[in-house]
Amino acid sequence: MTAQPDQTGMATGKIIISVDAMGGDAGPSVVVAGIAKSAKKNPELGFILHGPEETLRKLVSKRRVLEGRVVFRDCPDVVTMEDKPSQVVRNGKNTSMWSTLESVRTGEATGAVSCGNTGALMALSMLRLRRLPGVTRPAIAILFPSRNPQGFNVLLDAGADIRADAPDLLQYALMGASYARNGMHLSRPRVGLLNVGTEEHKGRAELKEAQALIAQYAEPAKFEFVGFVEGSDIPGTRCDVIVTDGFTGNVAIKTGEGTARMIASLLREAFKYSPLSRLASVLAVTSLRRLSKRIDPRQVNGGVFLGLNGTVIKSHGSADATGVSAAIKLAFTLARSGFAERLAARVASVAELTQDVAQSADAALNKEKESN
Amino acid sequence: MTAQPDQTGMATGKIIISVDAMGGDAGPSVVVAGIAKSAKKNPELGFILHGPEETLRKLVSKRRVLEGRVVFRDCPDVVTMEDKPSQVVRNGKNTSMWSTLESVRTGEATGAVSCGNTGALMALSMLRLRRLPGVTRPAIAILFPSRNPQGFNVLLDAGADIRADAPDLLQYALMGASYARNGMHLSRPRVGLLNVGTEEHKGRAELKEAQALIAQYAEPAKFEFVGFVEGSDIPGTRCDVIVTDGFTGNVAIKTGEGTARMIASLLREAFKYSPLSRLASVLAVTSLRRLSKRIDPRQVNGGVFLGLNGTVIKSHGSADATGVSAAIKLAFTLARSGFAERLAARVASVAELTQDVAQSADAALNKEKESN
Repeated sequence: MTAQPDQTGMATGKIIISVDAMGGDAGPSVVVAGIAKSAKKNPELGFILHGPEETLRKLVSKRRVLEGRVVFRDCPDVVTMEDKPSQVVRNGKNTSMWSTLESVRTGEATGAVSCGNTGALMALSMLRLRRLPGVTRPAIAILFPSRNPQGFNVLLDAGADIRADAPDLLQYALMGASYARNGMHLSRPRVGLLNVGTEEHKGRAELKEAQALIAQYAEPAKFEFVGFVEGSDIPGTRCDVIVTDGFTGNVAIKTGEGTARMIASLLREAFKYSPLSRLASVLAVTSLRRLSKRIDPRQVNGGVFLGLNGTVIKSHGSADATGVSAAIKLAFTLARSGFAERLAARVASVAELTQDVAQSADAALNKEKESN
Repeated sequence: MTAQPDQTGMATGKIIISVDAMGGDAGPSVVVAGIAKSAKKNPELGFILHGPEETLRKLVSKRRVLEGRVVFRDCPDVVTMEDKPSQVVRNGKNTSMWSTLESVRTGEATGAVSCGNTGALMALSMLRLRRLPGVTRPAIAILFPSRNPQGFNVLLDAGADIRADAPDLLQYALMGASYARNGMHLSRPRVGLLNVGTEEHKGRAELKEAQALIAQYAEPAKFEFVGFVEGSDIPGTRCDVIVTDGFTGNVAIKTGEGTARMIASLLREAFKYSPLSRLASVLAVTSLRRLSKRIDPRQVNGGVFLGLNGTVIKSHGSADATGVSAAIKLAFTLARSGFAERLAARVASVAELTQDVAQSADAALNKEKESN
């Protein structure tokens, strides 16, 4: 969906992203620097910016590339990292986060980006945008660097909900496959279910149940199910989509990110060690920069909330301009592919399918009863 | 405990490690290469080697450093990676794995090392060595590279059991702290409880309960409790010991290891990219080697089974000679520190403490009842 000129004052044809300027660790100046970075690279982008208008106008006026491409929504309140989601749901009407989601709900913007409090953003998204018909638990999908040709794997749930039963894990598989198709252009994504071992006798009961369920829907939902995968497959090549509950997913990605940061910092120290290694780092600077770009978490900044009526992207609280710009790029890619509509259609069709299967199972059962 | 000369034919004063030559991916030659590597570095070491004696004698005879330092135990059977733990417990009496644990049970060896099937090794260890009094679930503790001065953090449980309730997590905290004291010489280890967020209102119910329990025992058990930690703290500096259930722990370390392997392979590619970067890699070779040693999973090869009457170390199934040697070094360090005895004493004293607390709580409760 594109914004109408009468609503935003911007030219039609642009894709409008609703951006929460507040709530990140670094304040609104970094968010404005991020949207300026995106605006420079992509002339198709327009923005609705939410927060204290006077401050935001000043910041935006310093960036010529943003001229005529930003509409402001004045909001006095900010959701802090310490606010409890339940409080924000009750008292958050005047916050920039609430206003940011409102622009998606009304259709003025095609996607929302916020660096704020994850729990509050998810709670508000569920309240204002509502879940897609058929979805019990929305999930956060993140991109993790991998050795696959597309450079990343999708992991979900990365922390929307600490619980997930077998039907939830099936929905994550469907939503993750849909995201991989639209966000990474994989026509037949390979989906794996995270477990402690690939042997079938290992793991929790709900995982065995989920394995059977997902296997059943792989064919009609046009993905390949590779079965159980392990932690090492998250950056690996065995699958493109990793499905797990939000507790395990959150721990896994934070461990992966922490490991990458530790290695990067040890690598910097190694190159500072001697005059020879310092010379080496100068010679290898281009190669190392390419590598560091490949594994830089800022480049894949942005957890996508899946299962809602609208696209919401949670950027890291500590994101800098590069990180904010990456989250906006993701929102743009998904908006252009019509992802929200496709996902809704996919989930709806599988909800029907589930009913069909349930009905035919019931029918078979009744038939059996009759014949007995 | 050191082996008696009449039992092994080796000189007293040596620390004897019982080694399973079979069950690893690479076969017995790699295991023999590994013990030879350790024997060369450490004259205090002696070995009891379990497997097909003829094959093993041939392999050992080629290594002069092992002359007079290896006793053989002929075992015709091997536990494979596909064998179910329950089968091995029932029918595994003639396997090298069973025999390896037997030498620890009888006191001939001070520690056992095996590259075989983790589930089977844990099941056999519980059956033959028995749990320490007061321990419900033994745990696997692994070392993960970190930015702490000691170079590693301890994580447990890394996969002994996919479940853990609050009292189990308390025991993991006690055992992990004891391991950090004896294996890493930290007089007052800092212990963290793995969760999805550091805010107290986040996470599963059993984690909140465990948080309260662990906090209560930190002082008497002489460790510092830093509260909830996140995945990024596993390679971080906030604590030395990370406590979690075996499902989450297993996924986390495998994700971390997978991420490290991915970066290492991308780094190698980066250095091959151009003539300039190839030259750089030559110049930086010493620094890079030091870095790669620091984050090489083989250097910290070995999960320690905690909570049993005896020290058992599970080496990676894919370990090479360097990996096997690292596992043996760990067994040696723990044997020399009298770790098994200290841990038993610690767990026993806290079991008493728990009883004391329970009794005084009961007493208080009864008093209250009486006064009402």
